[in-house]
Amino acid sequence: MTRNTFQIPEAPYPDDSLALHTDKYQINMTQVYWQDGIHDRKAVFEVYFRKIPFQNGYAVFAGLERLVRYLQEFRFSDSDLAYLKEDGYPDAFLEYLKSVRFTGTVRSMREGELVFANEPMLRVEAPLAEAQLIETAVLNIINFQTLIATKASRIKQIVGDETTMEFGTRRAQELDAAIWGTRAAFIAGFDATSNVRAGKLFGIPTAGTHAHAMVQAYRDEYAAFRKYAECHTDCVFLVDTYDTLRSGVPTAIEVAKEFGDRIKFKGIRLDSGDLAYLSKEARKMLDEAGFTDAKIYASNDLDEHTILNLKAQGAKIDVWGIGTKLITAYDQPALGAVYKLIAIEDENGEMADTIKISSNPEKISTPGRKRVFRIINKTNGKSEGDYIALEHEEPQRQERLKMFHPVHTYIAKFVTNFEARELHHTVIENGDLVYRLPALREIQTFVKENLNVLWDEYKRLLNPAEYPVNLSQECWDNKMKRIEEIQEKVNRRVQA
Amino acid sequence: MTRNTFQIPEAPYPDDSLALHTDKYQINMTQVYWQDGIHDRKAVFEVYFRKIPFQNGYAVFAGLERLVRYLQEFRFSDSDLAYLKEDGYPDAFLEYLKSVRFTGTVRSMREGELVFANEPMLRVEAPLAEAQLIETAVLNIINFQTLIATKASRIKQIVGDETTMEFGTRRAQELDAAIWGTRAAFIAGFDATSNVRAGKLFGIPTAGTHAHAMVQAYRDEYAAFRKYAECHTDCVFLVDTYDTLRSGVPTAIEVAKEFGDRIKFKGIRLDSGDLAYLSKEARKMLDEAGFTDAKIYASNDLDEHTILNLKAQGAKIDVWGIGTKLITAYDQPALGAVYKLIAIEDENGEMADTIKISSNPEKISTPGRKRVFRIINKTNGKSEGDYIALEHEEPQRQERLKMFHPVHTYIAKFVTNFEARELHHTVIENGDLVYRLPALREIQTFVKENLNVLWDEYKRLLNPAEYPVNLSQECWDNKMKRIEEIQEKVNRRVQA
Repeated sequence: MTRNTFQIPEAPYPDDSLALHTDKYQINMTQVYWQDGIHDRKAVFEVYFRKIPFQNGYAVFAGLERLVRYLQEFRFSDSDLAYLKEDGYPDAFLEYLKSVRFTGTVRSMREGELVFANEPMLRVEAPLAEAQLIETAVLNIINFQTLIATKASRIKQIVGDETTMEFGTRRAQELDAAIWGTRAAFIAGFDATSNVRAGKLFGIPTAGTHAHAMVQAYRDEYAAFRKYAECHTDCVFLVDTYDTLRSGVPTAIEVAKEFGDRIKFKGIRLDSGDLAYLSKEARKMLDEAGFTDAKIYASNDLDEHTILNLKAQGAKIDVWGIGTKLITAYDQPALGAVYKLIAIEDENGEMADTIKISSNPEKISTPGRKRVFRIINKTNGKSEGDYIALEHEEPQRQERLKMFHPVHTYIAKFVTNFEARELHHTVIENGDLVYRLPALREIQTFVKENLNVLWDEYKRLLNPAEYPVNLSQECWDNKMKRIEEIQEKVNRRVQA
Repeated sequence: MTRNTFQIPEAPYPDDSLALHTDKYQINMTQVYWQDGIHDRKAVFEVYFRKIPFQNGYAVFAGLERLVRYLQEFRFSDSDLAYLKEDGYPDAFLEYLKSVRFTGTVRSMREGELVFANEPMLRVEAPLAEAQLIETAVLNIINFQTLIATKASRIKQIVGDETTMEFGTRRAQELDAAIWGTRAAFIAGFDATSNVRAGKLFGIPTAGTHAHAMVQAYRDEYAAFRKYAECHTDCVFLVDTYDTLRSGVPTAIEVAKEFGDRIKFKGIRLDSGDLAYLSKEARKMLDEAGFTDAKIYASNDLDEHTILNLKAQGAKIDVWGIGTKLITAYDQPALGAVYKLIAIEDENGEMADTIKISSNPEKISTPGRKRVFRIINKTNGKSEGDYIALEHEEPQRQERLKMFHPVHTYIAKFVTNFEARELHHTVIENGDLVYRLPALREIQTFVKENLNVLWDEYKRLLNPAEYPVNLSQECWDNKMKRIEEIQEKVNRRVQA
C-alpha cells in the first residue's frame, strides 16, 4: 500500500518581521494619533516593575542587547502591511506605517545592572507613534530576561563559587525562552549551558555527557560506560538508570579503573532519588576507589531552596545542573514590568508631565522625566540606596542628600561623602546606536561588581532587607501636584 | 558634540538552523553510537508526562504542527558544523552529521486530543541517532504548547460560552512563547488574541482598542475617547485611567451618546480595581443610559480561580481578557513530559524492550511498543477510560475488556459494548509527511468534540475524578518481567 504524502500547509504570510509582535491596540492607537496628526509629538515612556520577583532583595536587568537589535531592525514588512490591509486598515495609514522606523532615544541601565522596584530600567523618548508601537515587544523581552537573570543570581547566592549549569531547554516555554533564558543565566554567573544552539550563538560554554537512553540503548551500564569512554576523553557517567549505589557507581568506578589514564574520569551524575544520601554514599565509594578528584554532578528539579537544604544536609555535590525551576522561573514565572507614559509634548511644543491614577496606590505612576542614581558611600564603597530625581536635578553636586521612604515619607536619612552614580546611559540616540554593546563575559563581571556594592543584608535568600529607592523632594512634590490636578479635574467633572 | 555610533556586534555564527537546539549530551551520545556503528539501529521512544498539570482532570495535546515542521526541516547547517568543529568534534563525525535527516516514523495523537498521565502522546521510531538528536526540541515544543492548551481549556470550563481573549504577550516568556502560546489557547477555545503577529501567522482573530497611554497622551478622557471614536467605528473605551466610576464610565457614555450611530459602542474595559464592584456599578450606569447591549470587558491578572469568584459575586463581565496567568501557566509553568526509550533493535536485528528503573516508582518507564485506545461506551457515548496495549494486541476485537488500575491493580472493571478508538495516527512515515495537518479551527472543534466524550466529573476545576488509564494485562506482565530481569542482573552484579 502506498500512502499519500502531504506538504506542510503554507502559512498565509511569511514570518519576516517583528513589527507586528505587538498588541493590536498599539496599532489602533497609532491610527488615532496619525489621523489626529499628533503621531510625531515627542513622548517619554519609562519601563519599571512594582515588585522584585521571588521576594528577592534585588533584580538583575537583562535583555538590552536583544532589545537594541529589535529596535534597530524595526519596520513593517510588505507582508505585515498586506495582512493589516486584509484586516481593514486604510491604505493611507498603511502608507504611513510603511515609513515608520525607530528614530527615538533610549536611555537605559546597562545589562547586568541591579535594579529595584519602582525605578525606571529604561526610558524611551520618541515620536508618540513609534514609542507606542514598540511597547509590547520591549516588555516581552525585558520582562523575561530580567526575570531569569534574577532567578539565576538568587541561585548563585546559594551555590557560591561551585559550578552551575543551565539544563532547562526541554522544559522552557518554547524555543526562544530556552535560548535567551540561558543567556540571562550566564550573565548572572552560571558557568555553562546544555543548549548547543546557545553555545553557537552566544559563545556560552556547553556541557553534557550522556542520558539514561544511552544505557538503555546498550541495555547494560558496563557496556554503555565503556563505549562512552572509548569515544570521549572527558567522562561523567550517569549512574541512576537502574540502581545508583548497587550498580551505577560501582560500574562507573570499574570502567574508570579499566581505562585509567586513557580517559579523564571527571565524575558521576545523579539525576533522581535522595540526592543527599546518594551523594554522600557515592562520595565514599569514589574516595575509597582513589577517585578523590572525581566530582559529583547533580540535577533533578533543583533550585535555590533544594540546594540550600542539600548543603545543610551535608550533601557531597560539586556541580549543580539546574533545569525547570530556573528556565521557567517556576515560583514566579512572570515579571510584571510596565511601560508608562510619563511626559508628552503638548500642542504648544512644551513637554507636559502625565500620570496614571489607580485605586491600587502602587499602580499610580510617577510623572516626569527622571534620572536614577546609586548613592555610594565613599567611606565603605557600599550603596546607601537609589535616588530618583527629576531630569534637571543634580544630586551628585549636593553635599548632603536627604533620602526619604517613598511610602512612609517620615522615614528619612541624610547622606554625606557619597558618589551619585548615574545608572542610565544613552544607548540609542535619534535612532542611532551610540553605545558599545558589551561582550557577555563583561556583563557577567559587571553583575559581580554590582553585587559587591550591596550590603549582604540585601542579598540573602529569605527576608532580605528592603533596599531604599527614594524620590527626590522635587520629584515627590511634582507627583503630588499631578495627583491633585487630576483629582480636581475629576471632581469638577462630577460636580458639572 | 557628535557621538560615535556603533554597529550591533555580529554573532559568531548565523542562527540558520534548529538542529543544535538540543542538549549537548545528545550530540555526545550520537557520537558514541556512530563510532560504535549502532547509530542506524531502530529505536522507539515515547513521549508522556507523569502528572496532569494544574491538578486538572485532563490535558490537551498541542504542538504537533510545529513539531512536524521542525522534523521536516531537520538538518545541520554549515554553520552548525563549523561551530561543532570549533568545539572539538572530529571531521569524520561531522561529515556523518551533515548527512543526517529525520527518516523515522512518528505516530502521534492528533493536536487537540485529550491526554492523561502516563500515556504516550507520541511515539518516535527512527534510527537511534536521529531519535536521540531530536529529543530536546520535541519536548521543548510539546511541553509548552500542551501546557498552555490545558490551562486555556481549564479557563474555558469556567467561562463557558462567554468571549475569551488572550492578552499575555508582554508577560510571555520571550517571543516564541507569546506566539505559540496564543495558538495553543485558540485551539482550546479562546476566541481572539491581542498579538497581531499571531493573527498574521495563524489567522487567529485579533482584538484590542486602546491603552491608558492614549488617555494620558491627550491628558483627558473625553478628548481621548472622542479622538478614538473619530477614527474607529468599533469602540471599547478603557475607563480606569483616572477614576473608573466618577470619570471613566460617565465619559464613555457621554461620548457614545454624542457619536450615536456614527460608531458601534461595543462597551467599556476595566483593567484594575475591584472588578466585581466596578462591573456591577458600570452595568447599572450603562443600562440607565440605554446602552444595554454594551459589553463589559475585564482584564487584570485573571485566571480560572478569579473568574469563578467574580462570577460567584455576580460580577457583570461579558468578555474576559486573560494575560499573564494563561500565557505563562502561572501556577505550574512547566509540563514535565519525558521522552523514553522503550525498545531498541539488538545485535541480531530483533527489537528488544528497554526500561528505566528508579527509586521513584512513578519514574519507572513502561517498556515495549504500545497503542493507546479510548474506550467509548456505545450506550452513552462517554469514555470509560483509556487502554494501553502492546502493539500486537487488538482490544477493539474483544467482547469484554478488563480494565484495572495501574497502581492499585486489584481495582478492576469489565467493559462490554464499547468502541476502542485508537488515539495514535501515523504522521510521518520514513521521513515523509503522511498526515494532513488540520486547520486551526478544525482543531478547535476537535477539542470540543473530545470534551463531550468525557463525563463532567473529569472536567471540573477542583478535585476532578481520576480518569482511568489502564494497561492491558499483557503490557503489565511485560513490564513486571523487565523489572525482574533488571533486578536479577543488578543482584548478580552485587554478588559478583
